[in-house]
Amino acid sequence: MAFFDWPQDRLISYLPEREEQPDFDDFWQATLDEAASHPLNATFTPWSGGLDTVDVFDVEFSGFHGQRVKAWLLLPRHRSGKLPGLVQYIGYGGGRGIPYERLAYSAAGYAHLVMDNRGQGGGGKTTADTHDREVSGTAPASPGYLTRGIDDPANHYYRRLITDAVRAVDALAAHPDVDSTRIGVVGGSQGGGLALAVGGLREDLRAVVADVPFLCHYRRASQVTDAGPYWEVARYLAGNRFEVENVIRTLSYFDGVNFASRATAPGWLSVGLMDKICPPSTVYAAFNHYAADKDLAVFPYNGHEGGGDYGLPRKLAALESSLR
Amino acid sequence: MAFFDWPQDRLISYLPEREEQPDFDDFWQATLDEAASHPLNATFTPWSGGLDTVDVFDVEFSGFHGQRVKAWLLLPRHRSGKLPGLVQYIGYGGGRGIPYERLAYSAAGYAHLVMDNRGQGGGGKTTADTHDREVSGTAPASPGYLTRGIDDPANHYYRRLITDAVRAVDALAAHPDVDSTRIGVVGGSQGGGLALAVGGLREDLRAVVADVPFLCHYRRASQVTDAGPYWEVARYLAGNRFEVENVIRTLSYFDGVNFASRATAPGWLSVGLMDKICPPSTVYAAFNHYAADKDLAVFPYNGHEGGGDYGLPRKLAALESSLR
Amino acid sequence: MAFFDWPQDRLISYLPEREEQPDFDDFWQATLDEAASHPLNATFTPWSGGLDTVDVFDVEFSGFHGQRVKAWLLLPRHRSGKLPGLVQYIGYGGGRGIPYERLAYSAAGYAHLVMDNRGQGGGGKTTADTHDREVSGTAPASPGYLTRGIDDPANHYYRRLITDAVRAVDALAAHPDVDSTRIGVVGGSQGGGLALAVGGLREDLRAVVADVPFLCHYRRASQVTDAGPYWEVARYLAGNRFEVENVIRTLSYFDGVNFASRATAPGWLSVGLMDKICPPSTVYAAFNHYAADKDLAVFPYNGHEGGGDYGLPRKLAALESSLR
Amino acid sequence: MAFFDWPQDRLISYLPEREEQPDFDDFWQATLDEAASHPLNATFTPWSGGLDTVDVFDVEFSGFHGQRVKAWLLLPRHRSGKLPGLVQYIGYGGGRGIPYERLAYSAAGYAHLVMDNRGQGGGGKTTADTHDREVSGTAPASPGYLTRGIDDPANHYYRRLITDAVRAVDALAAHPDVDSTRIGVVGGSQGGGLALAVGGLREDLRAVVADVPFLCHYRRASQVTDAGPYWEVARYLAGNRFEVENVIRTLSYFDGVNFASRATAPGWLSVGLMDKICPPSTVYAAFNHYAADKDLAVFPYNGHEGGGDYGLPRKLAALESSLR
Amino acid sequence: MAFFDWPQDRLISYLPEREEQPDFDDFWQATLDEAASHPLNATFTPWSGGLDTVDVFDVEFSGFHGQRVKAWLLLPRHRSGKLPGLVQYIGYGGGRGIPYERLAYSAAGYAHLVMDNRGQGGGGKTTADTHDREVSGTAPASPGYLTRGIDDPANHYYRRLITDAVRAVDALAAHPDVDSTRIGVVGGSQGGGLALAVGGLREDLRAVVADVPFLCHYRRASQVTDAGPYWEVARYLAGNRFEVENVIRTLSYFDGVNFASRATAPGWLSVGLMDKICPPSTVYAAFNHYAADKDLAVFPYNGHEGGGDYGLPRKLAALESSLR
Amino acid sequence: MAFFDWPQDRLISYLPEREEQPDFDDFWQATLDEAASHPLNATFTPWSGGLDTVDVFDVEFSGFHGQRVKAWLLLPRHRSGKLPGLVQYIGYGGGRGIPYERLAYSAAGYAHLVMDNRGQGGGGKTTADTHDREVSGTAPASPGYLTRGIDDPANHYYRRLITDAVRAVDALAAHPDVDSTRIGVVGGSQGGGLALAVGGLREDLRAVVADVPFLCHYRRASQVTDAGPYWEVARYLAGNRFEVENVIRTLSYFDGVNFASRATAPGWLSVGLMDKICPPSTVYAAFNHYAADKDLAVFPYNGHEGGGDYGLPRKLAALESSLR
Repeated sequence: MAFFDWPQDRLISYLPEREEQPDFDDFWQATLDEAASHPLNATFTPWSGGLDTVDVFDVEFSGFHGQRVKAWLLLPRHRSGKLPGLVQYIGYGGGRGIPYERLAYSAAGYAHLVMDNRGQGGGGKTTADTHDREVSGTAPASPGYLTRGIDDPANHYYRRLITDAVRAVDALAAHPDVDSTRIGVVGGSQGGGLALAVGGLREDLRAVVADVPFLCHYRRASQVTDAGPYWEVARYLAGNRFEVENVIRTLSYFDGVNFASRATAPGWLSVGLMDKICPPSTVYAAFNHYAADKDLAVFPYNGHEGGGDYGLPRKLAALESSLR
Repeated sequence: MAFFDWPQDRLISYLPEREEQPDFDDFWQATLDEAASHPLNATFTPWSGGLDTVDVFDVEFSGFHGQRVKAWLLLPRHRSGKLPGLVQYIGYGGGRGIPYERLAYSAAGYAHLVMDNRGQGGGGKTTADTHDREVSGTAPASPGYLTRGIDDPANHYYRRLITDAVRAVDALAAHPDVDSTRIGVVGGSQGGGLALAVGGLREDLRAVVADVPFLCHYRRASQVTDAGPYWEVARYLAGNRFEVENVIRTLSYFDGVNFASRATAPGWLSVGLMDKICPPSTVYAAFNHYAADKDLAVFPYNGHEGGGDYGLPRKLAALESSLR
Repeated sequence: MAFFDWPQDRLISYLPEREEQPDFDDFWQATLDEAASHPLNATFTPWSGGLDTVDVFDVEFSGFHGQRVKAWLLLPRHRSGKLPGLVQYIGYGGGRGIPYERLAYSAAGYAHLVMDNRGQGGGGKTTADTHDREVSGTAPASPGYLTRGIDDPANHYYRRLITDAVRAVDALAAHPDVDSTRIGVVGGSQGGGLALAVGGLREDLRAVVADVPFLCHYRRASQVTDAGPYWEVARYLAGNRFEVENVIRTLSYFDGVNFASRATAPGWLSVGLMDKICPPSTVYAAFNHYAADKDLAVFPYNGHEGGGDYGLPRKLAALESSLR
Repeated sequence: MAFFDWPQDRLISYLPEREEQPDFDDFWQATLDEAASHPLNATFTPWSGGLDTVDVFDVEFSGFHGQRVKAWLLLPRHRSGKLPGLVQYIGYGGGRGIPYERLAYSAAGYAHLVMDNRGQGGGGKTTADTHDREVSGTAPASPGYLTRGIDDPANHYYRRLITDAVRAVDALAAHPDVDSTRIGVVGGSQGGGLALAVGGLREDLRAVVADVPFLCHYRRASQVTDAGPYWEVARYLAGNRFEVENVIRTLSYFDGVNFASRATAPGWLSVGLMDKICPPSTVYAAFNHYAADKDLAVFPYNGHEGGGDYGLPRKLAALESSLR
Repeated sequence: MAFFDWPQDRLISYLPEREEQPDFDDFWQATLDEAASHPLNATFTPWSGGLDTVDVFDVEFSGFHGQRVKAWLLLPRHRSGKLPGLVQYIGYGGGRGIPYERLAYSAAGYAHLVMDNRGQGGGGKTTADTHDREVSGTAPASPGYLTRGIDDPANHYYRRLITDAVRAVDALAAHPDVDSTRIGVVGGSQGGGLALAVGGLREDLRAVVADVPFLCHYRRASQVTDAGPYWEVARYLAGNRFEVENVIRTLSYFDGVNFASRATAPGWLSVGLMDKICPPSTVYAAFNHYAADKDLAVFPYNGHEGGGDYGLPRKLAALESSLR
Repeated sequence: MAFFDWPQDRLISYLPEREEQPDFDDFWQATLDEAASHPLNATFTPWSGGLDTVDVFDVEFSGFHGQRVKAWLLLPRHRSGKLPGLVQYIGYGGGRGIPYERLAYSAAGYAHLVMDNRGQGGGGKTTADTHDREVSGTAPASPGYLTRGIDDPANHYYRRLITDAVRAVDALAAHPDVDSTRIGVVGGSQGGGLALAVGGLREDLRAVVADVPFLCHYRRASQVTDAGPYWEVARYLAGNRFEVENVIRTLSYFDGVNFASRATAPGWLSVGLMDKICPPSTVYAAFNHYAADKDLAVFPYNGHEGGGDYGLPRKLAALESSLR
C-alpha cells in the first residue's frame, strides 16, 4: 500500500487534541453499573474437540444489560496453582470461532478466555454464536457494525460490545483456577480497540496489548482511508450529510484515544506504517495519549497484519514480565 | 458485464421446481394476523418542501408487530374525486429518501405512497427514517440485511419488511382521497421483490410492477453471482459451512418464486440480461411461475438499471389500463 | 475516496493566478455574435408522456453556427402569469434524456428548460438527440469530448457547447409564458461548468447554480486526478508529449475560473471534498475567483454526488430569493 | 484471462449464419465510386529521422470523400527494381505514430505503407495526424469510434475508415518503386479488421494478413465480452434500449464476416484463445467464412497480443510465398 | 467467486484420461534413490519460544541431492510411549514460519513435523529458512516457482520439493519418540499437492490428508483460472508460445492426478466449489483417480479457504481412526 | 495515475544523502576481476530471420563467473569502416526477445548489441534464453528477481546481472566491425538502471542513456509505490519484518544513485512524472547525483512509458554528438 499517511517523523509527535464530552465518565459509569446489576452467572461447560494438552470450556456470562455472551476458555491440562489470565478480543466481523485457531496463550501457560463478538461473525471468517439485542430498534445504518445506533451514544453498538468486554474480565476471574490479580487483556484490530477501552475502564488490569488497534480517532480515520470499517462512517455521512458533528460526537464515547488517556496498566501497542485499515496516524494518536507505561512496535512495511505471529515472542515476554 | 448467465433460449423456458415448505401459507397467515391485530393508525402530516404542484405528506403507520413505519404520500394538488393509488417499494440499502426524487407517479395522476425501508438507508444513497426492531436479538449475520435472522424464518429481516409492505397498502387506502379498489404496487430490485411478495399475499391489488426483482430463487442466485446482496448469502455460508440447507429453507419463506405462484393481479416484470445484481435466470424463474396475467420487458444490453426511466411509458400505459 | 486533495484550510484560501489569453473576451464576442447572426427560431412541440400536472414541450433552437439544438421545456399545467425560468445543463456523457427524470423545478413553479448535449448521450446513461457538427474535421482526440479540437480554441468542442448554452437562455425567454427578466441557470458537474460559463458570458441572469462544477482549472485538474473526464486531457498529453502548453492554452478559453471572474449574478456553488471527478481544489479555484455574490455548500464526506437531492431545499430557497 | 469463450472444438466448426443486407455490395460500390471520383493525388515527402538504411516518406492521399489521409512509406535504401508492397493498418485508438516503431517490413525488403487512422490517436499510445470529417454531424455516440454514426451506415465512422484503407492500396501502388501487381495488406486488431475489409473489397491483392482481427461478428462480440471497443456497442445499447436491431443492421455493413466471405486473396489469420478484446468465436466466425485459401495461427495461452513479433517468421514466410 | 467451473454433477463423474510418460516411475525411482544415497542426518535442536505444553525442535535433514532442509517438530511435553506422527506441508509462497501458528496437531497428541519450503517464504506470509539449489542454472521462468526448470523434468523445482517431502517422512521417523509405523501426511493447497505426491511415492503411510490440493491436472488448471499460481503456467506459455506440449509434458511428472492413481493409504481430500486458486475440476480429477480408500469433503460456498479450521474435527477423527 | 510523488519543484532539488558502504568499490572491483579472469570467448553466429537490410548474429559471451550469456548483435548490412556501438539492456521480466522488435539503432547506423537477461523472460513479454546460476542456493525470496539473494550482496541477483552488463560492452567491442573507442550504453527501466550501473563501473564509455531508470534509491522507492518490482522489496519486508536495514544495505551495492555519483560519460536520463513503476523522486535522486555532463527529459503526463519512441529523435541526436 506504500506510505499513504503522514511521514513517520510527523507521526511520532502527533498528539491531536482529544474530542471528549464532559459526561464521558458518567456515561460509562452508568453503563457499567447497569451491567453490574445483573448477576454475572459465568458457566463453564467442557468442550470436546479432540485436544489432549488443553482443557477447553464453552463459556457463557452476562454482559451488557445482562444479555448472555459466549466465550471459550482454554487452560493447559497439566496445571498447578492459580494461573495468570488473558482475555482476548476478536477482530471486526469475526467471532470466537473454533478453539483450534488460538492455542498459543494456553500453551504458554495462561488461562485464556476468548470473548465472542455479539452479532458479528457472519462474514465468512471466524464465526460467532452470540446474539446482539439493541436497546431500542436499529436506526438506519451503513452495513457493518460501526454505524449501528450512531444517532445516539446510548444506542451505539460499541456501548454494548465494550460493556461485554469489561465483564469478560470478571468472567475469567470467576474461574477457580485463575488468579484474578494477574489478568491482562489482548487483541488486534477491533480486539485491540476493545483492549484499550477495557484498559481505560478498569483499574485492576496488569497488562494491555493492543495490536494495530481499531476504534481510535474517528474523525481523521474516516477521512484518511477508504478501506475497511472506518469507511462505513464516511459512507454513512455521505448519505446523512448534515449529521457530521453529531456522529463524531457519538463516536467520541467509544474512542480509543479517550480510553488511552485513562490507562493505568502498562500498554504494548503496535502499528503497521502501510496499514490502510487502521491508519498509522490513528494508532499514534492513541499511543501518544496513552497515560501509563507504554511501548510501540513499529512495522514499517506491514499493513494491517502488523507483526502477525512474528510479534508474539515480544508480546509473550512483555506479558511474562507483568503477569508472572 | 456481457452475458454471464444462461443463453436466452434456455432462460425463456426455465421453470425450476419451487422450494417451499408445507407451512408457507400458515406462516404468512399468522404473521399478517399478528400485524393486523395492531391498529394501523395511519397519520398524514403535511411536508413543506417548496413544491407547488404536489401535496406531500409525511406518513406513519403500524407495520410488523405494530412497529411504526415511515412513508411519503404524494398527491397532485389539483385533484378531484378519489384517485387510483400506487405503493412504491425502494431498493436495497436505500430508504424513502426525500420526495423530490420521485415525482413522476403523482404527476401522472396517482396517489403515490413511498414506503420506507426499516433499518436501511445508511449506505450513502437515499436515506431512511424507520427503525427496525427485531423479535429476538440479532443472530450473527453477514453485513447487510439479507442474512439478518437467517437462522429462523421467524427472525428473518424480510419477515418484518414484507409485513410492512403488506400494511403499506392499507395505509395508502386509509387516505380519504384514495380509491381503495384501485391500488397497485410497484418497485425495482428489492422494491420489485417486495411488490411480488405483496402480490402473493394480498388478493385486492389491481397491478404488480416488478422491475429487475430481487429476492427470487436464492439457491441459484447465491451461486451464479458474486455481486450485490445475493452474495451476502454466499459469504455467510462460506463461514457457516454446515448450514446450507437450513439457510435455503429459511429463505424459501421469502422467495419471489413462491409469491409469484400465488399471484392474482396482472404482473409487469422486467429483466436485464447483463444484470449481475439480480441475474436473469432468477427473474425468469419468478416470471415463469407467475400465476396471473403477465408481461416481461427484456433489456438485452442492460444490467441492473434495466429499463430505467425509459421503461416508464410502458409501465404508465399498463397501469392506466388496470387502474383507471 | 478519502481526502486526496489538499486539506480544507488550504482549499479555502486557494486563489491560483488565472491563465487567460489577452483575446479571451474577443474570442467569445466573435463566437456569440456569429451564433446570434442566425435566427433563434425556437419551436415548442407538445410532448405526450402521460403526465397530468405538467406541460412538456419538445424544443428546438439554433445554437452554435445556427445548428439545431434540442431541449425539453416543462411548465406547471396550472399556471397564471409569466413564470420565472431556469435553464438546466446536463452532466458529461448524458443528454436531455426523458422528461420523467427532472420534474422538481417545474413542480416548484419554474419554467424549466433542459438543454441537450450535442453529440453526447451514447454512454448508457441519459440519452441525447442533438447532432454535433464540427467546424473543421475532428483532429485526433482522446475518446470523450474534452479533447475534441483541443489543437485550437476555434475547433474545440466546448466552444460549440457553451455557445449552445448561452443561446438556450434565449430559447427559454422566447416562450410566451416566461418572464425573461427572471431567469437563472443551473447544473451539476458539466452542467455546473456550463452554468458558470453562461454566467460569465451573459449579464442578464439572476442566479447561477453550479453543483460540483466541471470545466475548471484544467492544469491542476489534469494532474491531481486519474478519474473521470479530466483524465482525458492527461491521456491525450501522454501521447502528445510536446503539446502540453498549447493544450492548456486552448483549454483556458473554456475555463470556469476565467468565467467566474466575470460573474455578475449571485452564485451558489457546491463541492464534495472526496470528489475525484471534479477535485475540490478546482472548485475552490473557481469559487474564490467568483466575482459576484456567492455561497459555497461544502459536503465533506461526499464525492461527485455532492449534495444530491438533499441539497435541493437550500437551492430552491436561494432561487426563490433571486427569482420571485 | 483463462478460456472464457467456447471450447476449441466448438470454435473450430463455428459457422454462424451471416447477417447481411441485400444492398451490401451496392452500398460499397457507391461508396468506393464516390471516393474514386476524387483524384488520389498521392504525395511522398522525405522525412528525416536519422535512419541510414531506410528511406521514409511522409505520405498524403485522398481517401473517403477526397479527404486527405496521412501515411508513412518506408523503403529499404539499397534497393533495385520494383519492390513488392505491403499496406499496414493500425489498431484501435492509435495512428501511424512515428516510423521507428515499424521497421521490420522494409528491413525484410518490402515497400511498406503505414496508413494513419483518421480522428484516432489521442489515447496515449501511437499518435495520428489525420482529421476525420463526417458526412453529417456527429449523432450521439458512446465515447470511442465504433458507435460514431451508428444510426445509419452512411454516417458510420467505419465507412470512412474502410474507404481510406481501400484507397491506401492505390496510394502505395502510386509510388514508382512499387510493383502494383504484388501488394498485400496486413494488420492486427482493428488493423486486421481493415485488412479483411479491403480483402473483400479489392480483387487485386495477393495476400491478406489479419492478426487477432477486430470488426467481426458484432452481435456475438457485444454480448460475450465487456472489454475493449466491442463493449462500446453494448454501452451504447444500454442507453438506447430500443435500437438493438437497427444498430446490428448498421454494423453488418462493416462486418469482417461479410468481407471474409468475399475474399479472393490467400488469408493468414491468427487468434488468441484468451483474447477478451477480440474473442475467439468472432475470429473463427470470420475465418470459417473466409472464401479463399486460408490459414489460422492459434495461440492457446495468448490474449490480444496473439503471436506478437514471435509470429512474424511465419508471416514473412507466407508473404514471401505470395509476393516474391 | 460464484460457480465458475463445471456444475457439480459433471464434476462428480469427471475422470479425465491421465497424461503420463512411460518413464514416470523410473524418473521418480532414480530421483529418490539419489536422495537416499545421502545420509539423512536428521538433527533436532530445542527451540525456546515461551511455550509450556509443547516441546519444539528446530529440525534439519538432507533432502533432494542431500541439500539441507529445515523443519519444525512439535511434541506434546507430557507424553508417554511412541507417538503417531504427522508430516505437514505448507502452501505456495510460504514456509515453515514460526511454531505458534500450528499448535493443533501436537495438542491433539501427534508428533508433528512441519517441513519448510525451499526457496519460498519471501512473499509476506509465513517465512522460510531453506535454500534451494538447482541442478543446473535457472532457465528463464515466470515469477514464482511453478515454472522454474519447466524446460525439463530433471530441472523442475517440484522435483526437488517433492523429494524433500518424501524425505521429511524419514526425518520424522528418525525421532526416538515417534512410531514410524503410524505416520500420515497432511497439507492444504501446495501442501495438499505434496501430500498426494508423497502418498503416491511411499507405501508405508497410514493416512493422506489433502485439502484443496494444488499441483493437479495442469492442462485444465492453466486454462480454467487466471488466479493464483496455475496462472504462472499460462503466463509462461503466453511468452513461450511454441512450448505448450513440452511444458505440459514436464508438468506431468509432478501431477497429483498421476500420484493419486498410485495411492495406497486412505485419502481425505476436500474441495471448495468456488475455489479459483485450485479449481474444483482439478481436485475432482485427482480424487476420482485416487486408487485407495477415499473421502471428499465438499464445501459449496467456499473458495480456497475450503473448510478452514472448521474442517479440523472431521480430519482429526479420520486420523484417529487410521493412526491410533 | 496523476501526480502521486512530490511536486516538481521539490523533485528538481532533491539530493538525498547516499547510502553506501565503505567497501562499495572493493566489492565491485573484486566481482569484476573475477569475471575478467574467465576468457570472454564472444561468439557471433549468423541468424536468419528474413531480413535484408541488417545482419543479425546470435551472440554468446562469458559474463558473471564465466557463465555464458546470450545477446543479439545487429549490424547494418551495407556498412563500411568500423561502426560506433551501442549496448542495450532490457526491462524487468523480459529478455533479448526476437530481433524484429529492435531495429532502430542498427537502422541509424550503429552496431547494436541487445543483452539478454539471465533467468528472466518467462513472464509473457519478450523471452530470454540465458540461464542464471547462483553462487549458492536461492535464499527465500519474493517472486521476482529483485529479492533473490537479498540476504547478502555476494548472493544478490543484480551482482550477476550487472556483471553481465559490464562484460557485454567487451563482447560488443570484440566484433571486428566495431570501433571500441566509440561505445555507449542504453536502456529503459531495468535497462536504464543497468546503463547507469555500467556507466559507474567503466570509464571507457562515451554515452549513457537511461530512460525512466529502475534500480535507484531503494529505500524511498519501496515506500512510495505499490506497483511494479520495487514492491517486491516491500512484500519481502512485510514477511521479514526485522531485516529492513540489512536489506537496504544489500541493495545499496546495486543502487543507481551510487553508480551515478561515479559517472564519467555524458548521461541522458528521462522521467515520467506519473510513473508509479519508477517514481520520479527516485529518478531525480540519481540524476541529481550524476557526476558527469547530463540532461533530463521530463514527461509530465507520462507514466513508465516515458517518451517512448517519441523520445528517440532526441536520443539519436545526443548519441550522434557523442559517438560519431
